[in-house]
Amino acid sequence: MIDLRSDTVTKPDERMREAMARAEVGDDVLERDPTMQALEERTAELLGTEAALWVPTGCMGNTIALMLHLRRGDRFLASAGSHVLGMELGTPAWLAGGLPEALAWDAGPGRFSAAAVREAAGAPGPYFTLRTSLLCLENTHNSAGGTVTPVAEHEELVAAARQAGLAVHLDGARIWNAAVALGVTPAQLAAGADTVQVCLSKGLGAPMGSLVAGTAAFVAEARRVRKMLGGGVRQGGIVAAAGLVALDRIDDLAGDHANAARLAEGLAALGLEVGTPQTNIVMASVPDPGALLERMTAAGVLAVPMAGRIRFITHRDLSAADITEALERIAAVLQD
Amino acid sequence: MIDLRSDTVTKPDERMREAMARAEVGDDVLERDPTMQALEERTAELLGTEAALWVPTGCMGNTIALMLHLRRGDRFLASAGSHVLGMELGTPAWLAGGLPEALAWDAGPGRFSAAAVREAAGAPGPYFTLRTSLLCLENTHNSAGGTVTPVAEHEELVAAARQAGLAVHLDGARIWNAAVALGVTPAQLAAGADTVQVCLSKGLGAPMGSLVAGTAAFVAEARRVRKMLGGGVRQGGIVAAAGLVALDRIDDLAGDHANAARLAEGLAALGLEVGTPQTNIVMASVPDPGALLERMTAAGVLAVPMAGRIRFITHRDLSAADITEALERIAAVLQD
Amino acid sequence: MIDLRSDTVTKPDERMREAMARAEVGDDVLERDPTMQALEERTAELLGTEAALWVPTGCMGNTIALMLHLRRGDRFLASAGSHVLGMELGTPAWLAGGLPEALAWDAGPGRFSAAAVREAAGAPGPYFTLRTSLLCLENTHNSAGGTVTPVAEHEELVAAARQAGLAVHLDGARIWNAAVALGVTPAQLAAGADTVQVCLSKGLGAPMGSLVAGTAAFVAEARRVRKMLGGGVRQGGIVAAAGLVALDRIDDLAGDHANAARLAEGLAALGLEVGTPQTNIVMASVPDPGALLERMTAAGVLAVPMAGRIRFITHRDLSAADITEALERIAAVLQD
Amino acid sequence: MIDLRSDTVTKPDERMREAMARAEVGDDVLERDPTMQALEERTAELLGTEAALWVPTGCMGNTIALMLHLRRGDRFLASAGSHVLGMELGTPAWLAGGLPEALAWDAGPGRFSAAAVREAAGAPGPYFTLRTSLLCLENTHNSAGGTVTPVAEHEELVAAARQAGLAVHLDGARIWNAAVALGVTPAQLAAGADTVQVCLSKGLGAPMGSLVAGTAAFVAEARRVRKMLGGGVRQGGIVAAAGLVALDRIDDLAGDHANAARLAEGLAALGLEVGTPQTNIVMASVPDPGALLERMTAAGVLAVPMAGRIRFITHRDLSAADITEALERIAAVLQD
Repeated sequence: MIDLRSDTVTKPDERMREAMARAEVGDDVLERDPTMQALEERTAELLGTEAALWVPTGCMGNTIALMLHLRRGDRFLASAGSHVLGMELGTPAWLAGGLPEALAWDAGPGRFSAAAVREAAGAPGPYFTLRTSLLCLENTHNSAGGTVTPVAEHEELVAAARQAGLAVHLDGARIWNAAVALGVTPAQLAAGADTVQVCLSKGLGAPMGSLVAGTAAFVAEARRVRKMLGGGVRQGGIVAAAGLVALDRIDDLAGDHANAARLAEGLAALGLEVGTPQTNIVMASVPDPGALLERMTAAGVLAVPMAGRIRFITHRDLSAADITEALERIAAVLQD
Repeated sequence: MIDLRSDTVTKPDERMREAMARAEVGDDVLERDPTMQALEERTAELLGTEAALWVPTGCMGNTIALMLHLRRGDRFLASAGSHVLGMELGTPAWLAGGLPEALAWDAGPGRFSAAAVREAAGAPGPYFTLRTSLLCLENTHNSAGGTVTPVAEHEELVAAARQAGLAVHLDGARIWNAAVALGVTPAQLAAGADTVQVCLSKGLGAPMGSLVAGTAAFVAEARRVRKMLGGGVRQGGIVAAAGLVALDRIDDLAGDHANAARLAEGLAALGLEVGTPQTNIVMASVPDPGALLERMTAAGVLAVPMAGRIRFITHRDLSAADITEALERIAAVLQD
Repeated sequence: MIDLRSDTVTKPDERMREAMARAEVGDDVLERDPTMQALEERTAELLGTEAALWVPTGCMGNTIALMLHLRRGDRFLASAGSHVLGMELGTPAWLAGGLPEALAWDAGPGRFSAAAVREAAGAPGPYFTLRTSLLCLENTHNSAGGTVTPVAEHEELVAAARQAGLAVHLDGARIWNAAVALGVTPAQLAAGADTVQVCLSKGLGAPMGSLVAGTAAFVAEARRVRKMLGGGVRQGGIVAAAGLVALDRIDDLAGDHANAARLAEGLAALGLEVGTPQTNIVMASVPDPGALLERMTAAGVLAVPMAGRIRFITHRDLSAADITEALERIAAVLQD
Repeated sequence: MIDLRSDTVTKPDERMREAMARAEVGDDVLERDPTMQALEERTAELLGTEAALWVPTGCMGNTIALMLHLRRGDRFLASAGSHVLGMELGTPAWLAGGLPEALAWDAGPGRFSAAAVREAAGAPGPYFTLRTSLLCLENTHNSAGGTVTPVAEHEELVAAARQAGLAVHLDGARIWNAAVALGVTPAQLAAGADTVQVCLSKGLGAPMGSLVAGTAAFVAEARRVRKMLGGGVRQGGIVAAAGLVALDRIDDLAGDHANAARLAEGLAALGLEVGTPQTNIVMASVPDPGALLERMTAAGVLAVPMAGRIRFITHRDLSAADITEALERIAAVLQD
């Protein structure tokens, strides 16, 4: 099977497994686990924030941030098709208490303009009207096809939010891909956000774990909320050790991007409607995605349906040769 | 002051006040208050439902229905700009636990198509995906300008929802206006909905009170939720008596609609961009709504800003002469 | 039927009905209804608070106060058997987000000591421990039998709460009874509490309505929460007018207390185990409350089971003669 | 430092680390991770349930169970001082929606009688009264000092709950200790419970992870709730491998129990008021726990304050010699 369903399927390799086996650990509830602490400090440094907190999943990281940003009933703005709206089982609403307003993509796939933020934020009204208090960004944007928001555009969005009195949360689960694609640092792409969530278990290959970052005060309160939600693990250093190895591998993502470009070209050559991928995600429009996916599966190539298209994600467990093989299998399916 | 801000400003008249003063009452928590019971039964009959429950406000009625339809995290569909999305302080999300999906108006102002429902409802996915479970309708649609969904269109929407496995809640706060405008019964406009909320304190002129209607089983559980939310009043017969008078006055709404037509014509004659009102709401597009509203207020005419326009609502406390006078005052303001 | 189930069964009399029929009203959502405003100001004055807000029920008043005092997961202290713990359908937990700690009655029926508050409040712990943030008082205490907390004891409890960093909410649904029984003002019994809820539809006889009082800032935010919960009615002046009449009748409660004393003496003379009532509630211990209640009902006397006993409440719709008659009927039942 | 604060401080040893390093893994969100699946199946078998689900922490396991057992506002019964009441940051209330009723220890430390369950459960009342729907058990009981509920008593409690229409959740974080102490199987101690939570990272020494077990239908829904709360990790097989090793070590807990007995005897010999430990927890009553703990820490012995006493927990990272050494250090402190 050539598994292009997600970069979450990546498995820890030998170096990562060895790091886990040798990790120094402590009880991270009673005090700080030393490896966990190292991971949290290094992540905060990478993102340019005061502090960071490990969480088992990116869902928990986003949820904690929204819980701390939103008061009950607050409205928040997020990109149409963003992860917090479509893939977190409604937790921004029922758990964090927010009413979402989806912003249309008026600035390219997965991207909206600062003007759209200003208009949607509106002005404060009387006591019986909705309060808008948060802007959620997602970079890269998953369901739009791994699209990248460049630094200048990010800064304009943050400025528009600030002007409108909104806090800013950045879902940076794949911020590493955006940074590599743009040739900038993750900190440049997180600048001005109050909170950032980043993921270790996607393209970077750790078995589990994300971090949510922000001020030291935010992280202190986030630690409490993490305990509430059931994410306060004990000897977390084991998995944190994998995270430290993962952070050494950010530059490797360029290879995934090259493979995605290769895949997109190949699919286009096969007659599929495919845009140019900006990172490691390729979206293909086909008449009947479900039927094609089924036949691809039978031929040993896995992908997933998303928003009416087929989504392929390249990752570190797939080589250029795997991409070539996948294209051949898909070609055979299409000719069948 | 000529108050065109809302039909909620209507005050009880002498007949209604006398009915309240003479109402037979009981403790509606311990047993049924007899006047309340009469109001609930008459409303259920008008709507063609098994039962109905009085609630202090339409907000509580909608909230109770959504609380009982939605499990935590369920997605629900509602018209863009609908009352549950914009005017209930996020309760559908934080209190009822739902994640909204706003449907665009692809079938006219305030209206969406059955095809849009089918597409948005999608198909059930694996355990880690959102479940869509409810369609919310609003007839007439307030922020679109009191627009009406006709019976056939309502039936198609309900059928599409059923096909997709969705429950249907109808926010019929102004269903009376829709019924009068279309020359049909409220029951025809509620047909097929699982739950309906209707309001007594808008055009019908009661001082307070709405009802939420559905099956007897729904109402039994709604009674419990009403107690939870703090809506379980004792001698409610006093205000229920006003509600019974209000229900005698549904046909009077035709006068409000005529006044709205008169107002719209007059505003158009003054050069404002105004559509033809379908019921008692007139929306006017002007370059700077805030500034004009301020000057109108100084001239003794009240209206409100809504979605970038000015909203006027006619109601039973305003006569045709009041509309003429309002138009003269607005004319003077515009010429100023 | 002689209805001793509750003082909530009291019906508005002619004067109150006339006041409702003639009340000046306005749209209390868009601006302040003038009669509502008068009621809120008078109540705040009576309680010695900056402001007060009308709510349809005492449940909503308590819920709003708890929602504003508690952050998610906070622990709060309340008397064992108090209304917020036993009679509000769990809203302090699921809606206000608090985890209750029931305080035993170490200072008499329905009363606990300042020492108990200090011990239960404990000391702040590390991030992963419960935070205790609120003390709830109830005066008079319903399920203990209408028992009264005197001013000095109230002040000690408030002082203990303050010392422990706790806010104080007073459920004063029957604070009027406590004030009359003690010969003090309601303000003396509310002194030091951050928020107070008082009820108009129990012994004072209004058909519906309570108020929640506190600082102006609290009331401003409470107004928003009231809208959320569905308590933001329009022409509330109708029922507020009844409330103003009710507040003229606080001194009448002395008659109910005298009737309760009469009832208790009579029940004791019939051989029932009955304590001396402090206000208008009489609790009688009998071997099988359910069976006796059933036979009493058949004989035309209504009461309710509560905490293993039978609760009788005297009220303004029952005269001394009614009490005598009730005792005779109960005597007949017991001899049967 | 001799760390007697908790058995959560245990660190993975070489065998466990090697198992983690060699674990076969998969994406447990998209499909089942094979090692996770093996752990879940083995746990279900040990507990005699249809299925089990790994969760990062016992807190999440308890929360998921309560979320699925409780409807909003339901009352649940739990032992005074139980983990769900005192150590989970109020999640049973604000997140699972339940109102707790703490049951006093009328059957020995940490234990209550079937009669107490029956009385507290009461009978169903009218629509406006609390519904009681769940009994929570905890075996061993942490804050009572690791006390054990024997099989017969467990069965009586379950029977009483059934009779009263209550579901039963067992917090079996340390059920392994109870089983070893009683010489029975964990399944015997879980019999009749609808759901059970068991922990791998306490005395069994895994770095993290608990499981929540029940019917297959419960686990299917629990998997969804786990995703919501942020516990749906990807290559969980790494930590599941540690869990499988941990389950091989249940019998080793007898050594911890022997050490606890040794510690208790020694502390008693030093003049402290100490009961006979039933498992691996020793509770000592001293006049000023805080002061003594501070001096013990300075002498290299760590323990924690709990419910006015000092709690010591023995565990696999401490030998009999360590206990002897700890006693010597405490003796020196006391003589100081």
